[in-house]
Amino acid sequence: MIVIKIGGAAGVDLDAVCGDVAALVKNGQPVILVHGGSAETNALSTQLGHPPRFVTSTAGFTSRYTDRQTLEIFAMVTAGKINTLLVERLQKYGVNAFGLSGVDGRTIVAQRKEAIRIVENGRKLMLREDYTGKIECVNGELLALLVNAGLTPVIAPLAISTDGDALNVDADRAAAMVAGAVKASQLILLTNVPGLLRNFPDESSLIPFISVNDIDGALGFAEGRMKKKVLGASEALAQGVGKVIFADGRLEHPVAAALEGKGTTIA
Amino acid sequence: MIVIKIGGAAGVDLDAVCGDVAALVKNGQPVILVHGGSAETNALSTQLGHPPRFVTSTAGFTSRYTDRQTLEIFAMVTAGKINTLLVERLQKYGVNAFGLSGVDGRTIVAQRKEAIRIVENGRKLMLREDYTGKIECVNGELLALLVNAGLTPVIAPLAISTDGDALNVDADRAAAMVAGAVKASQLILLTNVPGLLRNFPDESSLIPFISVNDIDGALGFAEGRMKKKVLGASEALAQGVGKVIFADGRLEHPVAAALEGKGTTIA
Repeated sequence: MIVIKIGGAAGVDLDAVCGDVAALVKNGQPVILVHGGSAETNALSTQLGHPPRFVTSTAGFTSRYTDRQTLEIFAMVTAGKINTLLVERLQKYGVNAFGLSGVDGRTIVAQRKEAIRIVENGRKLMLREDYTGKIECVNGELLALLVNAGLTPVIAPLAISTDGDALNVDADRAAAMVAGAVKASQLILLTNVPGLLRNFPDESSLIPFISVNDIDGALGFAEGRMKKKVLGASEALAQGVGKVIFADGRLEHPVAAALEGKGTTIA
Repeated sequence: MIVIKIGGAAGVDLDAVCGDVAALVKNGQPVILVHGGSAETNALSTQLGHPPRFVTSTAGFTSRYTDRQTLEIFAMVTAGKINTLLVERLQKYGVNAFGLSGVDGRTIVAQRKEAIRIVENGRKLMLREDYTGKIECVNGELLALLVNAGLTPVIAPLAISTDGDALNVDADRAAAMVAGAVKASQLILLTNVPGLLRNFPDESSLIPFISVNDIDGALGFAEGRMKKKVLGASEALAQGVGKVIFADGRLEHPVAAALEGKGTTIA
């Protein structure tokens, strides 16, 4: 099984990704896709008069503050629009794609962060009524059921809490946990950079290979969102995923290139 | 199998429906839910500056004109918001609900109406670039796969064309075709009226029973959207569904009441 995370960042060529996925699936290689939707959620939130609010945790991670209205907008954008249109696009390429979010069948269960500690203007604050979660487990059996029926799952980054609340979860970590649950041979994270860069944003400073023992060192090079990707890679490898590849989604054959060793491989 | 269509009209008590569904599922009675989303699509379309446009076909049926932008809004509202929140609500009631639309896994295949003949201000017109469809088939095996895995499918009214285009389809007819595909014993259509009324809107003129042979006569009493429901009922019965019940979604136990014979039964 290959798990592919498609970033929503500008530049990732969805048609090229779908073409590569179709080639894999036709060759009998099962694929599971995971996508995000942050940028489009920001746009729709702003259009609907409820602009996004980003907060920085005391540990230094930035995330979306997801009140109930934001959660509903996030569900509309990710599970409604991006997921449906990606499934439609894959169907046009002959892939029998099947969209779901982690809420469906409790595929992704997360622990709700009911209160998050943030830093704002140098002050520490507690934010409540947040609908985000940290993924605890992924139902790999349910995903295998779909794959064994000839379907290609396409997963939107929502999860369900043990109390039955829908939650916004980080798509990179969702992809990592999905890859772990299905014991994927490879997890490919497509972004709009060539991989992990030693001197961000200098694309010539690509790090082609990182040993699993050097992940802590690699975290030092990771900027912004790349930190979460490196942490996700670490989690995925710990759960038995063969290797993780950070690859460039802007190439003509982004998935094929990743499988040929372009990008940053962590193994 | 019982298929339940939940109308989006004001008054239908979703918590009461979910409670009744939970009781059925806990008793080993599998259920499939189908929902609409017309009213919320109108509201979001208007908010986004792309107000809804309704057209009347030359045959006298009213439907939403669905250009590409409207299709995307329809997907956001139905597959994204209504579906996710209904699945979440059912999960809170202990039902392992699983949301999908007809696009997923080609569960519902429809023929796209590329051009529709309409009547506007007394003139006949052809409208093109419409993303609506007439359902041709429903993949009952895929739904059975989900049900046999202990899941309760919740279906949003989107379909896919043979060319791979996502399409807006009528939710009542979707429910009827789903019921036919899974050979449901009963199809329950919950609305905000007690059933089919002889003298609409006089609720005391409820018709409790219609024989399948008298459906043409019943069409004469059907007002507006009820016409599509009666046609759907006719299609469902022709496909082997045991009986169709038009029932009141505003009651304390709307599904239980329908199963006890309240509403209009067609058999």
